[in-house]
Amino acid sequence: MKSAILKTGAVAATALLASSPAFAAPAADAAATVAADAVGGGTAYIFNTLLFLIGGFLVMWMAAGFAMLEAGLVRAKNTSTQCLKNIGLYAIAGLMFWIIGYNIAYPGFGEDSMGLFGMAGTVYGMQDVGSADLDTGYSVASDWFFQMVFCATTASIVSGTLAERIKIVPFFIFVTILTAVIYPVVVSWEWGGGYLDSVWGFSDFAGSTLVHSTGGWAALVGALILGPRLGRYGANGMVNVFPGTNIPLATLGTFILWLGWFGFNGASQLAMGTVGDVSDVSKIFVNTNMAACGGVVIAIILTQLRYKKADVTMAMNGALAGLVSITAEPLAPTVGQSILIGMIGGAIVVFTVPLLDKFKIDDVVGAIPVHLVAGIWGTLIVAWTGDATFVGQLVGVLLTMVWVSVASGVIWLVLKTTIGLRPSEEIELAGLDIHETGVEAYPGLANQG
Amino acid sequence: MKSAILKTGAVAATALLASSPAFAAPAADAAATVAADAVGGGTAYIFNTLLFLIGGFLVMWMAAGFAMLEAGLVRAKNTSTQCLKNIGLYAIAGLMFWIIGYNIAYPGFGEDSMGLFGMAGTVYGMQDVGSADLDTGYSVASDWFFQMVFCATTASIVSGTLAERIKIVPFFIFVTILTAVIYPVVVSWEWGGGYLDSVWGFSDFAGSTLVHSTGGWAALVGALILGPRLGRYGANGMVNVFPGTNIPLATLGTFILWLGWFGFNGASQLAMGTVGDVSDVSKIFVNTNMAACGGVVIAIILTQLRYKKADVTMAMNGALAGLVSITAEPLAPTVGQSILIGMIGGAIVVFTVPLLDKFKIDDVVGAIPVHLVAGIWGTLIVAWTGDATFVGQLVGVLLTMVWVSVASGVIWLVLKTTIGLRPSEEIELAGLDIHETGVEAYPGLANQG
Amino acid sequence: MKSAILKTGAVAATALLASSPAFAAPAADAAATVAADAVGGGTAYIFNTLLFLIGGFLVMWMAAGFAMLEAGLVRAKNTSTQCLKNIGLYAIAGLMFWIIGYNIAYPGFGEDSMGLFGMAGTVYGMQDVGSADLDTGYSVASDWFFQMVFCATTASIVSGTLAERIKIVPFFIFVTILTAVIYPVVVSWEWGGGYLDSVWGFSDFAGSTLVHSTGGWAALVGALILGPRLGRYGANGMVNVFPGTNIPLATLGTFILWLGWFGFNGASQLAMGTVGDVSDVSKIFVNTNMAACGGVVIAIILTQLRYKKADVTMAMNGALAGLVSITAEPLAPTVGQSILIGMIGGAIVVFTVPLLDKFKIDDVVGAIPVHLVAGIWGTLIVAWTGDATFVGQLVGVLLTMVWVSVASGVIWLVLKTTIGLRPSEEIELAGLDIHETGVEAYPGLANQG
Repeated sequence: MKSAILKTGAVAATALLASSPAFAAPAADAAATVAADAVGGGTAYIFNTLLFLIGGFLVMWMAAGFAMLEAGLVRAKNTSTQCLKNIGLYAIAGLMFWIIGYNIAYPGFGEDSMGLFGMAGTVYGMQDVGSADLDTGYSVASDWFFQMVFCATTASIVSGTLAERIKIVPFFIFVTILTAVIYPVVVSWEWGGGYLDSVWGFSDFAGSTLVHSTGGWAALVGALILGPRLGRYGANGMVNVFPGTNIPLATLGTFILWLGWFGFNGASQLAMGTVGDVSDVSKIFVNTNMAACGGVVIAIILTQLRYKKADVTMAMNGALAGLVSITAEPLAPTVGQSILIGMIGGAIVVFTVPLLDKFKIDDVVGAIPVHLVAGIWGTLIVAWTGDATFVGQLVGVLLTMVWVSVASGVIWLVLKTTIGLRPSEEIELAGLDIHETGVEAYPGLANQG
Repeated sequence: MKSAILKTGAVAATALLASSPAFAAPAADAAATVAADAVGGGTAYIFNTLLFLIGGFLVMWMAAGFAMLEAGLVRAKNTSTQCLKNIGLYAIAGLMFWIIGYNIAYPGFGEDSMGLFGMAGTVYGMQDVGSADLDTGYSVASDWFFQMVFCATTASIVSGTLAERIKIVPFFIFVTILTAVIYPVVVSWEWGGGYLDSVWGFSDFAGSTLVHSTGGWAALVGALILGPRLGRYGANGMVNVFPGTNIPLATLGTFILWLGWFGFNGASQLAMGTVGDVSDVSKIFVNTNMAACGGVVIAIILTQLRYKKADVTMAMNGALAGLVSITAEPLAPTVGQSILIGMIGGAIVVFTVPLLDKFKIDDVVGAIPVHLVAGIWGTLIVAWTGDATFVGQLVGVLLTMVWVSVASGVIWLVLKTTIGLRPSEEIELAGLDIHETGVEAYPGLANQG
Repeated sequence: MKSAILKTGAVAATALLASSPAFAAPAADAAATVAADAVGGGTAYIFNTLLFLIGGFLVMWMAAGFAMLEAGLVRAKNTSTQCLKNIGLYAIAGLMFWIIGYNIAYPGFGEDSMGLFGMAGTVYGMQDVGSADLDTGYSVASDWFFQMVFCATTASIVSGTLAERIKIVPFFIFVTILTAVIYPVVVSWEWGGGYLDSVWGFSDFAGSTLVHSTGGWAALVGALILGPRLGRYGANGMVNVFPGTNIPLATLGTFILWLGWFGFNGASQLAMGTVGDVSDVSKIFVNTNMAACGGVVIAIILTQLRYKKADVTMAMNGALAGLVSITAEPLAPTVGQSILIGMIGGAIVVFTVPLLDKFKIDDVVGAIPVHLVAGIWGTLIVAWTGDATFVGQLVGVLLTMVWVSVASGVIWLVLKTTIGLRPSEEIELAGLDIHETGVEAYPGLANQG
């Protein structure tokens, strides 16, 4: 709720009031202490804006994290293509979110509207130089930047699942529509103050559902329509393992994502211009970190017990699952609860990864267990830790599922029947790099690509 | 101009005044709104200093970006040497900028001086502990740190172009002079308040010319004197492609540079202690990001159309060219203009890279198109978007060209005729790693190095 | 001293007083200048907290730096295991420091206590939402996060030395005890206000001894008990070089650590809510950077003179040794002194690395020279640059040596005689990756692993 309110510029003035001397009350029981030393409105504006900028560059950095994670987990012959997809999707997300996405996401719903559909009447314009307006409580451009990198994150999730078998052009076309329309519509329902927020009290602090499940549903539907990689599933349920080429690179990607998540969750507090807000950001840092720690440890223990080997890729996915799980509510839980939420997220991944293979759903990097399944888990558990009902959370999960699955499915099918999604079998077997981007990833290193 | 004024410590007190309560006027049309909640001088000092520190560590991080980009784009047999050069040049830049460079760059020109030559009379001393002086508006040490990492960036540009065929010792000697004298002299003309600033009103917000073209000219002259790699150019204009060994590493380098550029351009606002300043920093973040997005998308589209393959290394260089292009004026343009400027920068690279090969100028990583050509483009276009004349911008470009080319040329030639620039042919063919640093980059991986 | 006092929450109110208007005196000689524009208590609280958050995420990022450095310097066949160890140790450190470590480190010694043993009576609880208390001067959660990542750093040091020959499970058990008890006890003596601080006036600003030597002693004792890698030392003092598989990755790790060190040392100022504090943080940035520059340059010069080859791994270790050396006192020295301290640190490493091999102590990444020996050097030299006596510093070094060596030795020996430390010879020769984590690091790239 708070998240949603603050993210609509229209009512952000409230935030400023809360941080101006006369209204200094970051939290009820701290009010008495703080009032005498309250932060001025101009100073609060700077702090809030700075939070968006720091959070923004940390989340932008997650684009590199996804690129490294995915480049490390695909085979050498498809690595350059995966790199290109990750650079390209970030750029496309930036352009699309500027052209139309932000406007759809934050439509300024009328008061009578149910908030299901809506779009701002005017073309969104970044503030001109010197036209900063203290009433907004933060720089509009800083907020836009912070929102844009979330949009890019959603697209990053899709690229991992569909790796090694989708052509570059249809992938980029899908990303264009995902970042221009599909993701912004979901955001409008909640952070934009729409249907899920106003009717159901749905709560998703930093985007377990809005970002991670949205990416996850788009990836899942894509995987179903695209089909698995050639040779992935043999007769009698046999699964051929296609090991990733560069585990340290995937490790780096995991650490980058972990680092970026402090911006993802921490800056989703949307303000640090009061003593209460910056203390909340700090608690979010701790909870985010500890959920990831819990996810790692449980993944190591479970794989050690189950396979007698502590699986390093499961440890990575455990970290990411812990992070996704805590993202829907990283502030309200205690540290102990955060660890528990992260651990369960990590366990979910360990058990879901082999399950997907049972259904012959080929998810190259495990993005569906991590972002979709753990995202659902993290969203539902807010009914326990946060200020939301189980039904409200479930409605948010289901509505996102329906919208993203249907919209994505239509786009994927249209692309499939027009320009086609997959390269020829010969190209897929030879590796996409040679034919799609013309640049081999490891010449002089790879034995056979 | 603002940039230049603020960067001379002598007049930085102005900055503080502008951010103290009595003079709160970050921008004319916002003054009325802001005055009532202005930021105090001590608080502004902390914010300004913090901007330098955050910007500084982000630009320092670009040293890693260049290292990864270049390590990824050279062949395995020269990779360790390239890593060493990048670690070493950063360290040399730090020492040289402290010993002499900063003094040359910010000489405190007398009022009667034309500002062409000058040097501070006293040896520069970092502030002692506890001697912080509010009148400067920010910590001198934070400003020095921020300036130093720009100096290192200039040197990083040279190392990429000349990779795979220059010995370590002459390269480090050149870097020593570049960072001690050549670069600081250019800076003094503009950010130091000298000739280009005072006479021509030359405008270069964050260094399209001062940093990127300076590095580019030094690299170009070096490439001409050094000659191409053995076997690079065959008979009848044939160009042998020497593919880089590690494309994901180069991708990582690109993302690091992109991230670092938020500090490079954003913190070149030199202040965030007022509502107006931090809003400007935010706009710079957006414009910087979007110029890069534009550069990526255009590079992908052009290579897809031209070669039927979306070239991943061109996408990287498109991002970097977009970033270099917007660096001369990242604040004044609208977002749309920024995208356009970045797109043209990206297109320039796509067309310049093959052009260089026509002239048999061997630029291993494409640094000349990216940093020099796009840097010129970015500088000239300020006449359209910013507060500068085309002639003034052109004078800045040409003066930098003459000074850096001549000075670099002399140094390169002296080095060539004394200790020599290139290893023997046998060593170059075997790879520099074995003979120059004694450490192979990928033992156990590389097939033949 | 200051460091120690501020790190105990109990007396942190002092910090706030020092930064509130009425007591504005960041440093004696600046007081007059600053008083008129002092920073309010609420604003100072936000700045102090923000310093912990930024410093915290930078030091967290060092976990990735150690992972990349070590992954790059081990052989391909042990790389996945090394990645897993680095992900796992960070997660374990987080959990252990929360369960018990922080309480041991900051016990709130009674006034009569000598401060040698102690533990907080109550279970440590992170602040609840909204319960921020201005009296602490910063968010408790932000401080906890900043402390936790230091704990993880200590564990990272151990993993490098013992690479390629220790099983995952005993390693993780050791890390559990190191981060839960061994490291926190050392911290309690100094930053917790205990024996070394109160009796000896021991000074260790950011942890040359507390973090780096602690990790170093644990690594050294581990290396002695574990023994060298199979085949490392032949007859007649012959040393078999096992070159690292991925030098650019190790280079990346070095740059990550360098970047992270700005948080490590800079945020150890523990406050930036006054003009004096943020100026000190800035000076720390410069000194930290320049010590590393000095370490790099001296390592390059010495190896060039001695071996006629500028050794890239020595350049990396020179940077790290410079950083460790300046960590005990990064504020008081002049820039020139910092360079000198870093240079001597770098020289120490160049001469210590071959020395260890003389004693057949197998340190895979050179962590003992870098973190232990340079850590001792950096600690002792504070008697010259800072506010400490040589005897006091020596006592700190020796007490840490005795405690960490004995405690670590007991744990290593218990592990050795129970579950065993090393895999079988066949597994070690085949590489730990296949048997310990079941994931090869570079499938499709490595020739033989």
